Order: sequence, then C-alpha cells, then structure tokens
Amino acid sequence: MKVIKFGGSSLASGKQIEKVFQIVVSDPERKVVVVSAPGKRFSEDQKVTDLLIECAEQCLLNKNPKETLDSVLERYAIIAEELALTNGIIEEIRHDLSERLNGDRSKPDRFMDLVKASGEDNHAKLVAAYFRKQGIEAHYIDPQDAGLLVSDEPGNAQVLEESYGTLFSLRERSGILIFPGFFGYSKEGEVFTFSRSGSDITGSILANGLKVDLYENFTDVDAVYSVNPYIVERPKAIKELTYREMRELSYAGFTVLHDEALVPAFQAGIPVQIKNTNNPTAPGTRIVYERDNTNGPVIGIASDQGFCSIYVSKYLMNREIGFGRKLLSILEEFGLSYEHTPSGIDDVSIILRENQISSELENEIKERIKTELQADEVKIEHGLALIMVVGEGMRRNVGTMARASKALAKAKVNIEMINQGSSEVSMMFGVKEQEEKKAVQALYEEFFAAVTV
Amino acid sequence: MKVIKFGGSSLASGKQIEKVFQIVVSDPERKVVVVSAPGKRFSEDQKVTDLLIECAEQCLLNKNPKETLDSVLERYAIIAEELALTNGIIEEIRHDLSERLNGDRSKPDRFMDLVKASGEDNHAKLVAAYFRKQGIEAHYIDPQDAGLLVSDEPGNAQVLEESYGTLFSLRERSGILIFPGFFGYSKEGEVFTFSRSGSDITGSILANGLKVDLYENFTDVDAVYSVNPYIVERPKAIKELTYREMRELSYAGFTVLHDEALVPAFQAGIPVQIKNTNNPTAPGTRIVYERDNTNGPVIGIASDQGFCSIYVSKYLMNREIGFGRKLLSILEEFGLSYEHTPSGIDDVSIILRENQISSELENEIKERIKTELQADEVKIEHGLALIMVVGEGMRRNVGTMARASKALAKAKVNIEMINQGSSEVSMMFGVKEQEEKKAVQALYEEFFAAVTV
Repeated sequence: MKVIKFGGSSLASGKQIEKVFQIVVSDPERKVVVVSAPGKRFSEDQKVTDLLIECAEQCLLNKNPKETLDSVLERYAIIAEELALTNGIIEEIRHDLSERLNGDRSKPDRFMDLVKASGEDNHAKLVAAYFRKQGIEAHYIDPQDAGLLVSDEPGNAQVLEESYGTLFSLRERSGILIFPGFFGYSKEGEVFTFSRSGSDITGSILANGLKVDLYENFTDVDAVYSVNPYIVERPKAIKELTYREMRELSYAGFTVLHDEALVPAFQAGIPVQIKNTNNPTAPGTRIVYERDNTNGPVIGIASDQGFCSIYVSKYLMNREIGFGRKLLSILEEFGLSYEHTPSGIDDVSIILRENQISSELENEIKERIKTELQADEVKIEHGLALIMVVGEGMRRNVGTMARASKALAKAKVNIEMINQGSSEVSMMFGVKEQEEKKAVQALYEEFFAAVTV
Repeated sequence: MKVIKFGGSSLASGKQIEKVFQIVVSDPERKVVVVSAPGKRFSEDQKVTDLLIECAEQCLLNKNPKETLDSVLERYAIIAEELALTNGIIEEIRHDLSERLNGDRSKPDRFMDLVKASGEDNHAKLVAAYFRKQGIEAHYIDPQDAGLLVSDEPGNAQVLEESYGTLFSLRERSGILIFPGFFGYSKEGEVFTFSRSGSDITGSILANGLKVDLYENFTDVDAVYSVNPYIVERPKAIKELTYREMRELSYAGFTVLHDEALVPAFQAGIPVQIKNTNNPTAPGTRIVYERDNTNGPVIGIASDQGFCSIYVSKYLMNREIGFGRKLLSILEEFGLSYEHTPSGIDDVSIILRENQISSELENEIKERIKTELQADEVKIEHGLALIMVVGEGMRRNVGTMARASKALAKAKVNIEMINQGSSEVSMMFGVKEQEEKKAVQALYEEFFAAVTV
C-alpha cells in the first residue's frame, strides 16, 4: 500500500489532474492520494492558497472580498470545465467558502487557518468527483472523520500522537481515498494548518498512520540533484539517499522536500519516493533508512550564503569553566540561534545566519561579550557561505577530507573554517560568499566527475 | 636590561652554579637573576622543594621532621662546600628553616607555602653570597622589600597589578639582583606560592615590572622542538615562535614552559628566550610577539592523549534555541571543562579530557543529557588523541589543510574530527590514540622534511 501526494503545480489544471489520475490508477498499491490546493499554471499565475489568504485578510479588514473570492471560484470552475464535471461541485465549493468567510473572526489566526485550509479541502472533493466520473471508486476523506488530530497552533499545528492509531483504520475503507493536505482538526473540532509544505506533512503523517510500504511525493522535478543546478550545469541526479543525507543536504539549499515534513515517515521507517508528475517514468529519488555505498563517498553538495561569525578570543579561555555556556547564554537572550562553534585554544567562533542581526544588535552583542566575559577581542565577520559535502560513504573513508581540501586548494579557495567529526555523514567548509560558486564547482568536479550516482 | 631565570637543575650543585655565574657575568645586560630551589642532580635525586613539602607535612602531623630537615640542610651544605663558601650561609639557612617550622600551623595551607618557599628564598641568598665571593656586586632581593604583592591563595597566588609599578624601581638598584622565584607576599605580609612552574612566573612578572628588553629562561634543553622527540627522532629545533604558537603548542604536550607563566611577559610584549644552562652557546628558542614567516606554514606539531567525546544527536536539534547552552550547563554542573564542540546539523560532540570522568559519572551524565534534552542518542567514546598543527604561516595559506589531510590519508590514519577556523594559527585533528604516533610522524614528514625551522 502506498500514500501518494501531489503538489500544487501537479493539480493546477484539468490537464494536470488527468495526469494525476493516470498515475494513481496505473498502480493498484496507490490507495491514499494527498491533494494540495491548485498551484500555478504558469510562472505569473497565482496560487489558490495565496488568493485565499488575500480573501481572509480582506474579511479581517472588513473589506468586501468578492472579487478575490470570484478569482478562487473561477480557478475551480475552469478546472471543472476542463474535466467536464457537473456544476454541482462548484456549487458545493461556493457554499463551503461562503460559510467559512462568514465564520467567527474574533480570533484572526484561526479564521485565517479556516479559510486557507479550504484550498486543499475543496480541491480534494473536486479530485474525488473526477476520479468517480472516470468510473473509479474514490472517496473524499474528511480529516476530522479520519481522526487527524493536531495541536491548536495556527499555521504551525503539530500532529497529535494518538492520530496515528486512528488513521490506521483508513486501510479498511474501500476504493481510492482522496485526502486534503495541509491541515487537521484540534480536539475541539477547529481547523489548524501545518507550517509550510503542509501537504508534504499530511502525506508523511498518513504514511506513518497507515504503515504503508512507500510514501510517493510527486512534484515538478525529476529528482533531487547532487548539487544546485544554478551552480553546476546538468548535475547528476541522486537515485537513492538516506534520511540523514537528506537532512544534511536540506540544511543548506536543498529545498525539494522540507525536512521537517519527513519526520513522521522517518519515525516509521517508511521510504519516500520523489517523482515528477510531468515525467512519471523518470526514476526519481528515493529516501531510505539505509543504502548501499557503491558510488563513492559523496552523494551531494549543498551550499548556502548569508552567514556571519562572531569571533571571541581570551587568553587562557580554555581553562575557564563555564565560558562557552555563558557565551551561548548571551546569544540565547538575544533570541539568536547558531549553527556551529569551531574553537581554538583561546578563541571560539560562533557561526550564525546574519539576517538575525542588525548592525545595532551587533554592537550590543559585542559590548556584552566584551564586558561580561572580559574577552580580549570580539569581532564579527560577514558574508560567509557554508558548504556541506554529504554522504554516508565518507563515514570510514580515510581520504575524503584530503580530496576535498585538495580540490579547494587547487581552485585557490581559502577555507575559512572546517567542521568535521560529529556528523559521520558530512563535512562542512566555510568560505567567503564570493568563493562559494568556485568552491562548489571544484568539489563537484572532484567527487562527481567520474561517478554515477 | 634582561631578566634571567634558572631552573632547579641549573642550580642543583656547585658546578652548576659556577656555570650560572659564568652565564650571568658574560653579558652586562643580565641584571636580575631569578633563582629556583636546588633541583635534581641525577634522575633518582630528590628536589629540595619535595623534601620541604615532606618536612611541612611531618610537622602538620606532629611528627619529628628532623631527618628530612637534615637532608635539606645537607643539600645546601654540599653546594656551599663545592663553592667554598663560609659556614655562615648554612647557619643563616638553618636559622631561617627552624623559624619557619616553628611558625603558625593553624592554617595548614599557609604553613605549607611558608615552608615550601624557603627552597628558593634560601637558595637565592646562597647564590648571592657566591656571586659576591667571586668579586661581583650582587644582592639578594627580598620579594617583600621589592614589593612583589600577590593574592592570598595558597599554592595558586596571583600577582597583584600594583606590583608592577613598585618592581620597576628595582632598575635603580646597583649590582646584580638575585631574586628568589616561586612566591610573593600578601598585603598582610604572609608568604604565598605560585602554581607549578612558579619560578617561571616570577621571572615573567619581573620582566614585566622592570620593562626589560628580554626575559631569558635557562633550562636543561637546547630548544623547543618542532615535535615531540619521543615520537620523531632528532626533530628540528624551533628558533623563533610567537606567543600564540607557543600557547597552541603547549596545549598539547609541549611542556618546556608552562603557558600561564608567560602571561605577564606577554602582556608587556617582552620576548622570551629559552636557553640551555649546559649548552649556553646553542641558539635556543625565542618567543616573540610577531615573526617573519619564511619557513613554511607550520612551526610545530603537538599531540596529547587521554581525550574522550560525548556525542549527542537529536533530530532537528539545529532549530532548538538554547540546546547547546543547556548541554554545556549540564557539563558545568559536573565541574567538567571541555576542549571543543564540533557539530553537525543534528548532532554535536563534546571533546574533553577523560580523566575528569569516572564510569559512574559517565552514566549519570548520559542519563541527564538524555532526559533533560530529550536527545535521541548519547554515546561516549574513549581513547582519542588530539593533534595540533601550529604555525602563523598557515593563516592565509590555501593548501595547508590539503597537505595535512593528504599526509594522514596516505598514512592510512582515519581522521575522527577536524576543528579549524577559529584560531588562525592552528588546526586540530582528532584521531584514535593508537594512531597518534603514526599521524604525527606523517605530518612531520610532510611539513618538516625539507624545511629549516
């Protein structure tokens, strides 16, 4: 049994939904279909979810949302027409939306969630109607009926553990189950949405709850690539990678699948297959618990800009119990999260995303560290890029660091920082932002030039 | 003007003191001579300081210290005889010791410091007497008269800032000044000793106070070596290194000069020359504020065993503000000091000296980290060695890491951990203890085979 999830662009038009239908019925194991709201048909198009947010905002400002509402309804109407569905489904959606928009506005966040969630909810009903019209037994599943319970955090709902047991009984239902993504219900029966990539989260939760064999995630790319295609032309696709590798890669620039979305499937040990709705015969990328290491030590290279480092030095720092803790406490008081803390004997650097720090805050931080820790020197350096070289195969591979650092030296890239040793599946290099591209290209050349991934 | 300090083995016998005299008078700039207590004459010999500690312990246990006291006096008597000094000096020392031993025992730590300090104090008097006998104007300097004020921490006295100003006036005194190392006086006039390498500390304080041009530290080795001679045979000597390099090297295994002892000289920017009393024409090693980088990127390689790592992993740890701080707080509550904290995305390792942790404590720490931080996994790995590759020249040298890691890969050494980036003058490798020797040899081969240091 499989859970199969389709993203917004895969469901943006009647033509796309026809593809989705063909994909689902081509494999009898595809039991549960998780549906997103209609996405963009072309790059300037608007997503239905964005229109719904606009709608809800207008209501909250006591403006008339009619025009925006009409745009939403028109999107569904066009799709229904393309799929030759009867007008009944559009009337149902119109009725649902008008009920939501007339709902309780006393808690704006919750009102927003209620309206936003309609994009997936109504599209699931439409998709189910189309499947039935094609002569297939298909049912829209109401997340509340199915027991998808979540915490009452607007825009950031967390699945409640007890949901998994209840969801398991969906296995008994007949036909194909069309399940709306992106939201669940609180114990009080209110709608709450997940954070971004919410439909991915729904699919992952259902995969766990139903204990399926595979979670298929259909999107609009053929595969996860070994490196950013904007940096290296036509990079190799990754056929298989582990959860750990995915997590390390997604940290810095790999955004095909939001890593938090994977957690429920990950916890149940269910593999995830990423595929392309527009090219379903392409093998795609499989995310697994374990994989064979037959293709060299490195599976992918990710990089991201926008980091800075806070350098603190103090003679004999090393002997001062509590120094590191006090330093981190100061950052915590400013609400800053940090990435790494490479250290020498008498100095330590804290690497963090620089968008967290204004220049005013920067001076305040410096001052506090100087005064409270009696540091000899505090300086902040901007414009760092972090490069992650990732692969389970480097775990016991003696020469990987030598190859990587040699490739960087050959490309005349100065390594500002190396962090290796805690994670067994990655090593991290810090370089100046203007050297990021050159560095990534050199590393790709070294590890992928003669390797099939 | 120079401050010149001699270690215990340089003053262990009449013959050695004759060498010291020749060294001092050969350079008119050598104004202040800092004297240690008589050290070992041969490897099974006892240091006078150790005999004095025994003496004090016997007193504190109300045992008769006579036999030990006689051994102390005998050491001085032999030296006096070798130097053909009159009996007066020995009587003076006997009188001093009996006064100290009959002193206040109500605070054992302070009594201990009072007795211990006599080793240097009396030897300074003897050495001054010998210099005078040789026809040179030389004066024993009482640290209390000179104004060497320290905090009242037995065995760990810290110099008080105001001492420096007072000590400066020693410049005005005529003749050669023989100054006992290892101790100072509290504001209340009590004796307190420094921590280990106490005479080095005295020399360093005097160098700062008198604002001399050079602090010469005479010991029993020709130089600081670029690597441990037990690991690499006949390693190259270092002619010049910076304070920072010295500090990084002394962290792991370089024990010629205790790094804390350097702080006062370091603060005043005074260079330190390490020389050999038994081979004074050897150039020795100079520790400076800045040096030219003409000899390759690496100046020395140090290593030390006995480290362990506490590995903590938790999925999405990276997003949890305060995780690192909480982890370090737990260690701090156990009074543990740590060395480095390399981190991945979802994991962090804490490297610390394993002699701090019993196996009982180990389980307690694990349990607390698991429970309080809800970590997915906590494991402790023992038997790590840290290797420091040090040199100011690597600051902007693109290929140093490539050379180092390639050398290790070639020697089939697996790198458990790399920490590079905060300190600009070192990089650190973690390896298994059984690979330490092989790793250091490979690195030495790479960086020193064709280089004169």
